[in-house]
Amino acid sequence: MDVGELTLSELSRNLAAHGLPAEVRGDGDVRIRGCNTLEGASAGEITFFANPKYRDLVATTQASAIIMKADPTLKSPVPQLICDDPYRALTLAIIRIHGYRRHPQWGRHPSASVAETAKLGRNPNLAPGVVICDDAVVGDNVTCYPGVFVGPGAVLGNDVTLHPNVTIYDLCRLGDRVTIHAGTVIGEDGLGYAPVGKKWMKIPQAGAVVIEDDVEIGANCAIDRATLGATRIGTGTKFSNLVAIGHGCQVGADCMFVAQVGLAGSVIVGRHVTIAGQAGVVGHITIGDDAQVSAQAGVNSPVKAGSMVLGAPAAPVAEARRRYATFQKLPEMKTRMRLLEREIAELRQAVAAIRGEADGAELPVGDAPTSDVR
Amino acid sequence: MDVGELTLSELSRNLAAHGLPAEVRGDGDVRIRGCNTLEGASAGEITFFANPKYRDLVATTQASAIIMKADPTLKSPVPQLICDDPYRALTLAIIRIHGYRRHPQWGRHPSASVAETAKLGRNPNLAPGVVICDDAVVGDNVTCYPGVFVGPGAVLGNDVTLHPNVTIYDLCRLGDRVTIHAGTVIGEDGLGYAPVGKKWMKIPQAGAVVIEDDVEIGANCAIDRATLGATRIGTGTKFSNLVAIGHGCQVGADCMFVAQVGLAGSVIVGRHVTIAGQAGVVGHITIGDDAQVSAQAGVNSPVKAGSMVLGAPAAPVAEARRRYATFQKLPEMKTRMRLLEREIAELRQAVAAIRGEADGAELPVGDAPTSDVR
Amino acid sequence: MDVGELTLSELSRNLAAHGLPAEVRGDGDVRIRGCNTLEGASAGEITFFANPKYRDLVATTQASAIIMKADPTLKSPVPQLICDDPYRALTLAIIRIHGYRRHPQWGRHPSASVAETAKLGRNPNLAPGVVICDDAVVGDNVTCYPGVFVGPGAVLGNDVTLHPNVTIYDLCRLGDRVTIHAGTVIGEDGLGYAPVGKKWMKIPQAGAVVIEDDVEIGANCAIDRATLGATRIGTGTKFSNLVAIGHGCQVGADCMFVAQVGLAGSVIVGRHVTIAGQAGVVGHITIGDDAQVSAQAGVNSPVKAGSMVLGAPAAPVAEARRRYATFQKLPEMKTRMRLLEREIAELRQAVAAIRGEADGAELPVGDAPTSDVR
Repeated sequence: MDVGELTLSELSRNLAAHGLPAEVRGDGDVRIRGCNTLEGASAGEITFFANPKYRDLVATTQASAIIMKADPTLKSPVPQLICDDPYRALTLAIIRIHGYRRHPQWGRHPSASVAETAKLGRNPNLAPGVVICDDAVVGDNVTCYPGVFVGPGAVLGNDVTLHPNVTIYDLCRLGDRVTIHAGTVIGEDGLGYAPVGKKWMKIPQAGAVVIEDDVEIGANCAIDRATLGATRIGTGTKFSNLVAIGHGCQVGADCMFVAQVGLAGSVIVGRHVTIAGQAGVVGHITIGDDAQVSAQAGVNSPVKAGSMVLGAPAAPVAEARRRYATFQKLPEMKTRMRLLEREIAELRQAVAAIRGEADGAELPVGDAPTSDVR
Repeated sequence: MDVGELTLSELSRNLAAHGLPAEVRGDGDVRIRGCNTLEGASAGEITFFANPKYRDLVATTQASAIIMKADPTLKSPVPQLICDDPYRALTLAIIRIHGYRRHPQWGRHPSASVAETAKLGRNPNLAPGVVICDDAVVGDNVTCYPGVFVGPGAVLGNDVTLHPNVTIYDLCRLGDRVTIHAGTVIGEDGLGYAPVGKKWMKIPQAGAVVIEDDVEIGANCAIDRATLGATRIGTGTKFSNLVAIGHGCQVGADCMFVAQVGLAGSVIVGRHVTIAGQAGVVGHITIGDDAQVSAQAGVNSPVKAGSMVLGAPAAPVAEARRRYATFQKLPEMKTRMRLLEREIAELRQAVAAIRGEADGAELPVGDAPTSDVR
Repeated sequence: MDVGELTLSELSRNLAAHGLPAEVRGDGDVRIRGCNTLEGASAGEITFFANPKYRDLVATTQASAIIMKADPTLKSPVPQLICDDPYRALTLAIIRIHGYRRHPQWGRHPSASVAETAKLGRNPNLAPGVVICDDAVVGDNVTCYPGVFVGPGAVLGNDVTLHPNVTIYDLCRLGDRVTIHAGTVIGEDGLGYAPVGKKWMKIPQAGAVVIEDDVEIGANCAIDRATLGATRIGTGTKFSNLVAIGHGCQVGADCMFVAQVGLAGSVIVGRHVTIAGQAGVVGHITIGDDAQVSAQAGVNSPVKAGSMVLGAPAAPVAEARRRYATFQKLPEMKTRMRLLEREIAELRQAVAAIRGEADGAELPVGDAPTSDVR
C-alpha cells in the first residue's frame, strides 16, 4: 500500500478514487506529509473542520491545508479540500498519508524460544525472548512482540499481531488478522470454585478461549477461558482497554466494548452490540443484536435487540432518563411533599371548623404522615 | 493423581469414593474422555443438567452421557449418572477426567537469570527469561512462566505458580500453593504522596505485600505494597481479574473478589467475604466476616458481619432494594405529586366557596408549591 | 542521600533541618532502624499517632519511639518526638530512615536488545531481556526492569524508571524523572474505527503519548495514543493502578487519579485535579483546575474549576448530597405519598358531604392518581 507524503491535488484524486469527491480550493501543489488537529497542525500538515465547536480555530490553524464542507461564511487562510463528509475524508487521508503501524522486523529472533513440537507458518516475526510452547500452531505472517507467551496447544491464525507482554494461555485459539494490544491476557482461569464449607475448591477450567477473525483487543484486558467449551469473541469485534470477560461468555460479531467494561460469566452478547465504558453485566444474561449499553450501566436483566439501556440497574433509555431527571428533582420533591402535608393539615382544620368541630380528629384518617424526611 | 479417559461405570465408582453415590442408567461401558455443556458436548463427552432453564437441551445433546437428578418426567436419549447433586458431581468429574493444568517443564532454563544471592528450592521450573533478584527466596516446586520478575528480597513459598509476566516487587512474600495469573502485579507503590502546596511529594512506600497460603489471584490485578508494614491477603482467598487493592489493606481468609473490584487504602476485610464485580470500597472501612457486597456497590461505611449490602452508596440489601424499587417508580411519583397538588388546589377552592370567600387566600398556607418538576 | 538507622535525637535534628522542630521526650539515644504503624511496630521502630481513632493503641504499641503532638492527656510508654505535624514528620522520617527504592544494578545487561539506531544516554541500567527498538532515544540514568519494551522512535528522558513489563509504544515520549509501575502500557491504539455499514474500519492511530516530567503512573494502566497529535499527561501528575485514558486526552499538571479511573477520548483536565477511584468521564468534556471528582462518579458534563462533583450523573457536591439523602428516604416518601392520597380522598368526601353531595364526583379533578407504587 502506498503511504507517505503527497500534494493536495494528489490527495483529492485519492479520495475521489475511494468514492469521495473533494474539490481543491487554492494551491493544489502544497505538499502534505501528515494529518493533525486544528490546534496541533503545523506547516506540511493537513487538518480538518467537522465539529462546529472548533469553528474559531479555522482562522488560526497553522496547517498547510484543511478538509471541510463548503461554507461561504467561513474564511480559511489555507488551501482547502471541500467535500461532503470531512470526517470520512480525514480517515482516508490518515490511511493514505500515515498508513497503519509498521512493525519492527525480527524474523525469527534467535533468542525466541519455540518448542520443537510447535508449528510455525511462513514469515514469522518473533521478537527477542518470545516463548512458543509445545504443540502451538502459528500461522503465516504472525508478529509477536517481546514478552509474548503462546501456551501449549494454542493456535494463532495468519497475520496475527500480538503486542508486547501479551499472554495466550494453553489451547486458546485466535483467528486470522487478530490484533491484541500490550499486556492483555487471553485464557486465564475464571473464578471457578465450588464451596466446601467456607472454603473454596478449585474447579479445573478445562475450556478455552476462541477469538475469531479480525478482532482487535486493547491493552491490559483479561478474557477468562471457559470451564467447559469455549469463551468466544466474534468476528470483527473491537475492545478497548482493561475489559474483563468472565468464563463462558459468547460475544457476537462486530461488537464494540469501551474501556473497563466487565461481563460476568456466561453472558451472551449478540452482533453489533455497543457497551460503553465501565458498564457491567451480571452472569447468564442475554444482550440482543444491535443493542447499546450506556457508560457505567449495571445490566442485571436481558436487553432486547436494538434497544438502548442506561443506568444501574439498567433500564430502557427513555424510562431511565425519566428516572434520572426526576432523581435530580428529588430535593425539590421532598420540599413539595412537605408543603402538601401542611396544606392538607390546614384544609382538615378548615373543614373541621366548618363542621363546627375543634380539631378534625374524627375524620377517619390513617396514620399521620412522618413529619419530616430530612 | 489419576487423570484421563474412563467408562461411565468407573466414573460412578469414582464419585461414590468421594462420597457422592451416582447410579448408572443405561450403558455403563460408554467411554468418557471429556466434560462439556449440554450444547457444546459431542460423542465421548459427558454433560450435566442442573439449571432448569436448559431443560430443552437435554433431548438434543450430542453428549455420550449426562449427569442429572432422578426426574421421571425427563427423557434422556443417552446413558445417565443419577445423583443428588449434579453440580458437585460435575466438579468431581472435571477433576477426574481433565485434572488441573499441567505446566510446561523448563527445569531451570539457562536463560533464566537468578541472582547469586537468591536461594532456590528443590525442583525449580523457571521459564526462559525469568528474573530472580538478589536475596530472593524461592521454595520447592515453584513454576515461573516467561516474563516473571521476582524482586530483591521477595519470598515465594513451596508449590507457587506465577503465570506469564507476573511482577513481584521487592520484599513481598507469597505463601505456599499461591497461584497468580498472567500480568498481575504484587507490591507496586501505592498513591502515597504528601501535598506540598499544589505539588505532591512522594512518600517512600517502605512496606510490602504478604499473600498467604492457597491464595489464587486472577490476571492483570494490582496489589499495592503498604506504606509501612504489609498489605495482606488471607489464606485461601480468591480474586478474579483486574482487581485493585490499595496500600495497607488487610483482606481475611477465604474471601472471593470478582473482577474489577477496587479497595482504597487501609480497608479491613474479614473472613469469607464476597465482593461482586466492579464494587468499590473507600479507605479505612471495615467489612465484617461473611459479608456480601453486591456488584457495582459503592461502600462508604462499615459493613456488618454476615450482612449483604447493595447500591451506591451501599446499604443493607432489604433497604437498598426498597430504595431502588421506588427509584424505578420516580416518574410515576412525580405525576402523582402533580395530581395531588391539583386536587389540593381544588379542595381549597371548594372550601373557600363553602365559606363564601372568593379565593381561599386567607387560609394560612406556606409558600405555594413549585408548579412543576419537569 | 543519607539513609538508614539513627538515634531519636539525630532524627529530631534531621526534622528541624527540614523546618519541622520536634522535641525529644525520654531517651534520645534510642536507636531507630525503621518506621511502622502503632500496631505493627516492634523494638527498633518508630511509630506515629495522628488519627484520634487509633488513640487506644498508643498505650500498647511495641515501638521504640512515637511521633505525636503534645497531649498532656495521653501517656505514652515510650520516648516521644513531639511536633506540630506528626504526619509530615513521619513522611520525613520514612525518607530519612528507609529512603526511596534502590534499583538492582544491571548496567547494560548483555541480553538486553538495543537497536543499532537507538541512542542510549549515560549510565544505562537495562535488565536482562529489555528491548529498545530503532530510533528510540534513552536519557541518562534510565532504569528499565525486565520485560520493558521501548518501541521505535520512543523517547525516554533522564532518570526515568520503567518497572517490569512496561510497554512504551512507538513514538511516545516520556520526560525526566518519570516513573511507571509494572505492567502499564503507554501508547496502544485507542478505539478509533469508522463505521462501514455494521462493520468497523480501523483508523490508523497516527498520534502518540507525551508524559511530562515527574509523572508517576501505577501498575497495569493503559494510556491510548492520540489519533492525531498527542495524548498528554502533565508535569507532576500521579496515577494509581488500572487507570484507562482514552485517545487525545489532555491531563494537566499535578493531578491525582485514584485506581480504576477511566477517561473517554479527548477529555481536557486542568491542573491539580483529583479524580477518585472508579470514576468515569465521558468524551470531549473539560474539567477545570483544582476540581475534585468523587469515587464512582459518572461525569457527563463540564466540571467548573475549583468545584467538587459527586454521583452518577455527577453534580456539584451540595446538590448531589441532597439528592442522595432524599434517595435514601424514597421508601418513606412513597409511604407518605400514599397517606396524602388517602387524606385527600377523605377530605374530598368530607367537602362533598358538607355540600350535601354523595361522592364528590363533580369536583373538577384530573385523572385519579395511581393507587399504589409498589
